[in-house]
Amino acid sequence: MNMTMDMMKGAMSSSEMPMKGMDPAMMQECMEALSACMQACIMCADADAGEGMAKCAGMCANCADMCNTMMRMMLRMNGWDMQVMSSMMQTTTMMMRACSAECMTHAEMSEHCRMCAMACDQGVSAMEKLMGSMSEAMPVA
Amino acid sequence: MNMTMDMMKGAMSSSEMPMKGMDPAMMQECMEALSACMQACIMCADADAGEGMAKCAGMCANCADMCNTMMRMMLRMNGWDMQVMSSMMQTTTMMMRACSAECMTHAEMSEHCRMCAMACDQGVSAMEKLMGSMSEAMPVA
Amino acid sequence: MNMTMDMMKGAMSSSEMPMKGMDPAMMQECMEALSACMQACIMCADADAGEGMAKCAGMCANCADMCNTMMRMMLRMNGWDMQVMSSMMQTTTMMMRACSAECMTHAEMSEHCRMCAMACDQGVSAMEKLMGSMSEAMPVA
Amino acid sequence: MNMTMDMMKGAMSSSEMPMKGMDPAMMQECMEALSACMQACIMCADADAGEGMAKCAGMCANCADMCNTMMRMMLRMNGWDMQVMSSMMQTTTMMMRACSAECMTHAEMSEHCRMCAMACDQGVSAMEKLMGSMSEAMPVA
Repeated sequence: MNMTMDMMKGAMSSSEMPMKGMDPAMMQECMEALSACMQACIMCADADAGEGMAKCAGMCANCADMCNTMMRMMLRMNGWDMQVMSSMMQTTTMMMRACSAECMTHAEMSEHCRMCAMACDQGVSAMEKLMGSMSEAMPVA
Repeated sequence: MNMTMDMMKGAMSSSEMPMKGMDPAMMQECMEALSACMQACIMCADADAGEGMAKCAGMCANCADMCNTMMRMMLRMNGWDMQVMSSMMQTTTMMMRACSAECMTHAEMSEHCRMCAMACDQGVSAMEKLMGSMSEAMPVA
Repeated sequence: MNMTMDMMKGAMSSSEMPMKGMDPAMMQECMEALSACMQACIMCADADAGEGMAKCAGMCANCADMCNTMMRMMLRMNGWDMQVMSSMMQTTTMMMRACSAECMTHAEMSEHCRMCAMACDQGVSAMEKLMGSMSEAMPVA
Repeated sequence: MNMTMDMMKGAMSSSEMPMKGMDPAMMQECMEALSACMQACIMCADADAGEGMAKCAGMCANCADMCNTMMRMMLRMNGWDMQVMSSMMQTTTMMMRACSAECMTHAEMSEHCRMCAMACDQGVSAMEKLMGSMSEAMPVA
């Protein structure tokens, strides 16, 4: 992901939009966590379906779609609306937390759920860190 | 979209999750509006790029991705978490409102922006109607 | 979807790219079929997961993602590369055909599979019609 | 992505589907390249829009969507249909090759295009390597 970070720095330097309080390294870490969470959730949902775990499958599929969209929105700097970004970051964090909680209810019997919960937790941590660093720049929804 | 509605009714009747206050016809209307908004936003972003309108292109691309994810989450009833759904519905509505406002700033010179703003506005209306009907069933974020 | 068609006609009239053999109404019909197929597939995958039908769930999820991407590519006229479009149209048609076949194996016991197979079949028909009309404009992969 | 690879190995060991000729490490490398290519393409499209480069923006947006869908399909092992996977791998490779070619036409004046072309080229290499290793297991479309 070094290339992604180089491209982000280039975009930030040329963007007209003020990037107050934005740390490219922290955003990068966040996008890596979102990408890893999306991958884990897709695999977990795929495995769940063979085990009749419908709620876990549905939540993982939703979490995967949200992480994907969140990451794509972070990458499109020209499209940033700070209020929308802030609300989407909070919603995605809420989704990863809910998905982790569901996965943890069957983590003992299902290794993919245990790993998916870990990926969600790492996503939550990265998002909270980034949101904390941006709290002065972004309005709270 | 009649088939979608028939499948939704089938899913609702067999789902274990209580669907308090959920009107399939209202959800259906909402998903059609989200789908139309996604399509308009993708075409608007595509046209914007040839006209150097970076902010509009970025916001439309983000709005398209959010509408898409919102619609997919509505269709996966087993994955519903009411708090996440409520927050995502509010965030998507906020995104469509912001995208409409941006498009309206150049609606006079750009026909695709004018039409995209209309699609966003119809999405906002459909979402507000659905959220209003669900206000007793869903916690406010 | 009337607005989508109006926007498409506008884009076609202003596009520099030759749209040989392209019928907006036929494309419109195709995108509606892809959108309906995506929706049916997401609902079918969601229901499958509660019934332990892992293969059907995975194929429907893949079919939903492909239909979605195919529709988005059709809407972005500036990004059209005829060879890629042709190959993607063939691949998406292949996916819908495979998904329909899988769903049909349990259509008798599962109503959502029966309806999903119908949505896939309609998608296949619409794509074949469009590809037939474009055969003179597009290279065969 | 170590967690992704661990989950993939787990899924492969329990899957009923024969994974002839599949090397998890090679698939992992491929998915990382697809993810990096998607990210570069989204950023390149976002930057293109401010520079009036409509064709590059549209092709990059399409390439991003295809890489994303390809990666998601690779992760859903229960949904694999070898003929569809093979055709989708070839189409995605074709898309990345076309996107790289378009980006290279303005790589000298645009740093994001130069970097995006590199990400596409790495995606093409990873896909060709994986397709080569699978050629005995998969039918050629």
